[in-house]
Amino acid sequence: MRIERSMLADLARGAAFLGSGGGGDPYYSLLLAEAAIERVGSFELISLDELPDGALVAPCGWIGAPTVSVEKLPNGKETVSGLKRLEKIVGQKIDAVLPIEIGGGNGLAPLIAAAELGVPIVDCDGMGRAFPESQMTIFNIRNLSACPSVITAACGSLAVLETDNNLTHERAARNLSVALGGIAHMVEYPLTGAEAKANAIPGSVSAALATGAAIREAHERGADPFAALNEALRQTGLYPYAITLFDGKITDLQRETRGGFSVGKVVIDGFGANDQMEIDFQNENLIAKRNGEICAVTPDLITVMDRETADTITTEKLKYGQRVKVVGAAAPAMLREEKALTFVGPNAFGLETAFEPIEQLNPKDTS
Amino acid sequence: MRIERSMLADLARGAAFLGSGGGGDPYYSLLLAEAAIERVGSFELISLDELPDGALVAPCGWIGAPTVSVEKLPNGKETVSGLKRLEKIVGQKIDAVLPIEIGGGNGLAPLIAAAELGVPIVDCDGMGRAFPESQMTIFNIRNLSACPSVITAACGSLAVLETDNNLTHERAARNLSVALGGIAHMVEYPLTGAEAKANAIPGSVSAALATGAAIREAHERGADPFAALNEALRQTGLYPYAITLFDGKITDLQRETRGGFSVGKVVIDGFGANDQMEIDFQNENLIAKRNGEICAVTPDLITVMDRETADTITTEKLKYGQRVKVVGAAAPAMLREEKALTFVGPNAFGLETAFEPIEQLNPKDTS
Repeated sequence: MRIERSMLADLARGAAFLGSGGGGDPYYSLLLAEAAIERVGSFELISLDELPDGALVAPCGWIGAPTVSVEKLPNGKETVSGLKRLEKIVGQKIDAVLPIEIGGGNGLAPLIAAAELGVPIVDCDGMGRAFPESQMTIFNIRNLSACPSVITAACGSLAVLETDNNLTHERAARNLSVALGGIAHMVEYPLTGAEAKANAIPGSVSAALATGAAIREAHERGADPFAALNEALRQTGLYPYAITLFDGKITDLQRETRGGFSVGKVVIDGFGANDQMEIDFQNENLIAKRNGEICAVTPDLITVMDRETADTITTEKLKYGQRVKVVGAAAPAMLREEKALTFVGPNAFGLETAFEPIEQLNPKDTS
Repeated sequence: MRIERSMLADLARGAAFLGSGGGGDPYYSLLLAEAAIERVGSFELISLDELPDGALVAPCGWIGAPTVSVEKLPNGKETVSGLKRLEKIVGQKIDAVLPIEIGGGNGLAPLIAAAELGVPIVDCDGMGRAFPESQMTIFNIRNLSACPSVITAACGSLAVLETDNNLTHERAARNLSVALGGIAHMVEYPLTGAEAKANAIPGSVSAALATGAAIREAHERGADPFAALNEALRQTGLYPYAITLFDGKITDLQRETRGGFSVGKVVIDGFGANDQMEIDFQNENLIAKRNGEICAVTPDLITVMDRETADTITTEKLKYGQRVKVVGAAAPAMLREEKALTFVGPNAFGLETAFEPIEQLNPKDTS
């Protein structure tokens, strides 16, 4: 399958939804991808099955504060210099790239990498959505090492990390990203083809494409974009349950920057009925309560969207008075396994609640 | 010249004085050096002249908080793994090592490096004393690059930095040291023999040895250790002026940890006469005022010492009630050049005063 220029906006729209409120706004990544496709014509998207076992596969993405990333633009060389250094360290050419997280701007990061190296993108990712920290990836859950990783920044600086474990790696990379200007490109969790096939979350790039396309097509034919989105998500198989959790107006918002994260709570009052929804977030939306009852919790997806356009509103763009719908979706099954939940479930974010699947919390589809 | 086991305590004592209140207490470095000398017998100290121009010379030291370094011990492999990685990056064996700063514990750091690699220590350093930040070195003042540098930590983690400039390098290395546990070993400013000869501060290791020995010998023969220290400093030629600035009791102390540094002010009341000295510090002592008049300012050395033992009291060990003498010494001439002062003079630390040489501020030697 090839990703043509006309599909980039769909991919950005779908990746924004899968960001679950985080991952950063894909707008600048979309511009970079459009510039890259001018040079290369189209991007090749291959399935995991097509990877030779001995291939070198490089997950790519940006680390840092989304708020910085919209003010401080990349210099355009970060991606290629990081990838070239990884090749030098491993002593092997990179055969394919993939997004470390499909959600938000990072869902488009490997497009630029693929254009630079002339390699395909693998239809998979490391998170199935977006998460705020780099150890919250299926590759860490499955005991693969983040290292050697290569961090490159707009100032031209480069760092290679070989840490004792993946949590130290997150801390080191996070602190480095701050020292290097608040945002940096990172190639991490270098994989063999066999490791990618056994562990990556399959199909997430095409899922982002499909959900983005579904929203666009619904608009084109005057249909309800939320019904189209939910149906498209279910059809991916990767997100087998999707539901519109709430419809209302933002009436309260608390948001602060704490420990490098955007942390807060948004309150949405329902139209008509006396309903209220509260969502807590740390970059990503973590838990949604309807009238005090939990109706979705991480790693299941919770995304706040403009109720007319179905554009995703990332947590840093939430504002008082916005008319929104809240869509929830089941996380990929690999993220709901017991060990995975210790890394990406509610307790990993300090929430004192056990994970419950969104389809059990919301037996009826109200979309 | 060879450094025998019996000389290590002199070196530690001299390095502590040259730390100007900072550089960390050399006690643990002394223990490590003693353990290393058990294996190698003695250390070879060579002069800069003996270096071939094409030699690879590696400045070594620890980066992080001295307060952490006395609680969290090294694992013993940091130094060798950092040096071996530098050899791999440069594609050349290291021919000699040197202390990035002679002051404090870092004055002894290359001894461990030399023992691990079986190479000599060069009789020179990068600061002629201690300074709190890694760009405050003669190598940065002379436009040499800190990179590639290799940072290694007790947890086994390693990072390679290649930054766009030396100030970014300091920020990145500082943040990394925090992420890796608060203290880490760093090999930085890799030099050719020719670069070391043209730029390093010559003779500072033997100066530390001589001043430490002078204090010990004065104790042994019942003489005044301060007169002996000041005379030994002058005889090095590197610190051509030395003076006992004050004699009194610590009557007030403000000290806080701010931005990763130990920052504060100590007040010393004179014995007898109605004299008072105030010293401001940021890890190192920066400026000393006697009755409101500046009598020494960075980069000249200001060291607070126990008035009986002439043991150096580093800024983190200052306490109310200590009976102390304050010794000042002229910095090596290379640090007093106009360009050097922009990096290590009073303005570099936010002090709104111009540098004045200690010998002009204190025309009479009162030691």
